[in-house]
Amino acid sequence: MIKEIKANELNTSRFINEKVKEIADTVGTGIAINALSGGVDSSTVTMLGHKALGKHLKTVFIQNGLMREGEPEMVAGFFLKLGITVEIVDAQEEFLAALKGITDPEKKREAITQTFYREVFGRIVKESGAKFLLQGTILTDVDETVAGIKRQHNVFAQLGIDPQEAFGYQIIEPLIQLRKDGVRMIGKALGLPTELFDRIPFPGPALAARIIGEVTAERLNTVRKATAVVERMLKNKGAFQYMAILHEDRVTGIRDGKRDFGQQIEVRCWDSIDARVATPTNLTFETLEKLAAAVIGEVPGIVSVTYNIATKPPSTIEAV
Amino acid sequence: MIKEIKANELNTSRFINEKVKEIADTVGTGIAINALSGGVDSSTVTMLGHKALGKHLKTVFIQNGLMREGEPEMVAGFFLKLGITVEIVDAQEEFLAALKGITDPEKKREAITQTFYREVFGRIVKESGAKFLLQGTILTDVDETVAGIKRQHNVFAQLGIDPQEAFGYQIIEPLIQLRKDGVRMIGKALGLPTELFDRIPFPGPALAARIIGEVTAERLNTVRKATAVVERMLKNKGAFQYMAILHEDRVTGIRDGKRDFGQQIEVRCWDSIDARVATPTNLTFETLEKLAAAVIGEVPGIVSVTYNIATKPPSTIEAV
Repeated sequence: MIKEIKANELNTSRFINEKVKEIADTVGTGIAINALSGGVDSSTVTMLGHKALGKHLKTVFIQNGLMREGEPEMVAGFFLKLGITVEIVDAQEEFLAALKGITDPEKKREAITQTFYREVFGRIVKESGAKFLLQGTILTDVDETVAGIKRQHNVFAQLGIDPQEAFGYQIIEPLIQLRKDGVRMIGKALGLPTELFDRIPFPGPALAARIIGEVTAERLNTVRKATAVVERMLKNKGAFQYMAILHEDRVTGIRDGKRDFGQQIEVRCWDSIDARVATPTNLTFETLEKLAAAVIGEVPGIVSVTYNIATKPPSTIEAV
Repeated sequence: MIKEIKANELNTSRFINEKVKEIADTVGTGIAINALSGGVDSSTVTMLGHKALGKHLKTVFIQNGLMREGEPEMVAGFFLKLGITVEIVDAQEEFLAALKGITDPEKKREAITQTFYREVFGRIVKESGAKFLLQGTILTDVDETVAGIKRQHNVFAQLGIDPQEAFGYQIIEPLIQLRKDGVRMIGKALGLPTELFDRIPFPGPALAARIIGEVTAERLNTVRKATAVVERMLKNKGAFQYMAILHEDRVTGIRDGKRDFGQQIEVRCWDSIDARVATPTNLTFETLEKLAAAVIGEVPGIVSVTYNIATKPPSTIEAV
């Protein structure tokens, strides 16, 4: 049973001191490793780990090719300013190969998870010589797994590390007593830049969740450009989340005065408290017109733009 | 060279009297036939023809299964009130069979045209014993064909009637000197109900043009229901044209608390003078919310609704 620490009873400096000591004691003179995604949980664990271990912690950022424009560089840049070197591992080809030909959303997610753990991060962990794995697991993640009993064994199995061999490995989860609000407090106290906290939710499968149908380098490029436009134009509207979705359906358009089949981008912008229910944001018609013109003007191949007007339920926040 | 009669120089009663006499003289004691679509051109020709020929003109309405809700009955009902019997020919199965497996928009159009002329109307013309074919061709149609020289031969070839045999057939095109505005004047003078004039433009391939991907009985049913909702809710907004488009892409939705893939309806509502350029209508956000709720509430299988925000160009009015 994990003892929860609620945000209102969290003493940030005491928590940080305790966890830094625990991590340092556990790892000793060994080497630890962690994967940074740029989210609040993995960013906070990275800060804590480096405070405890310095150069004994190796932090990798896996560039899976599904990130938003400039995201790996931005995240690595943040940490470099804080004196922490993040190694960007280019694994785009492996993820694209794993996603080739897949159109089913569940299978897409599975391919990304498998490639991350089994192929890429599993290999990095084994090659690094690290026996300690720092993870940003929070209490909500534990609640969301069925039991958590076989948890550690499962993570190593996911990494393709043999249970026998795994005896030498250990997982460290310093945030496991906290929920998201507590993690944000710790992250802030550790000096993480506010940009990391203010960011809108972004799905695990990243831009692959924003593509209906097959994920290819070309289609990723299209939805990445559209995402940059939509995030730029909707960032100050006070919305909970906003996104560009690339459809697979082709629609008729006109190019150079001739009929030409083109692609459609659907924009969703949600008002919501906790993502359980959501309604489309009441954007002005002028904003919608400018948004459509910007997407069409800046993203090659797009001839049509729509705005979602359905609520969740029966819709969901993401389309894929 | 066809001599144009401009709307401002059109004397409706003289035009009607002349054409009625011409048609009666040409057909004599024979039988004529025409296909009524419910559009202004074919409706006006039906009125003129019956004025000239009475029971010697057989008017058929081909129910291709691609019509809007209640459309064949509505059109036949209009004419019955005017004393004209329209025979509704149920050809739904033939059109559905011809459309089976076709996803390419151009091939859809071609399948519909071929089925109409070669299969259905060709058969009806041959079986009717009619040697005169009344057509609502207007001057704009002539402009839009390349030359018009081989016109009559082409129509019979389209109907699957042998050129040798076709010698006995004759086409009568009483509206060929007019443009749309002139036809509306003649139609009104002949007592056609205003509902036929006020209707928004509707494409030749009918609801098949409102379905991205394969046209099936089930998908027609879905887009027909959505079209009824959209036309009902947007009819008083002063828009040029408005429509519901059924997408082929599946999007995630929630049904009974579980993830479930559903379908998306895209609503387009256009401001335009002549359809050459068009902008989305500035509907209030409240209208958009009500529209989405009505489509979701009334059309089974729909979990997502979008509103088009792109202009023409680069979009087109219709998606298919």
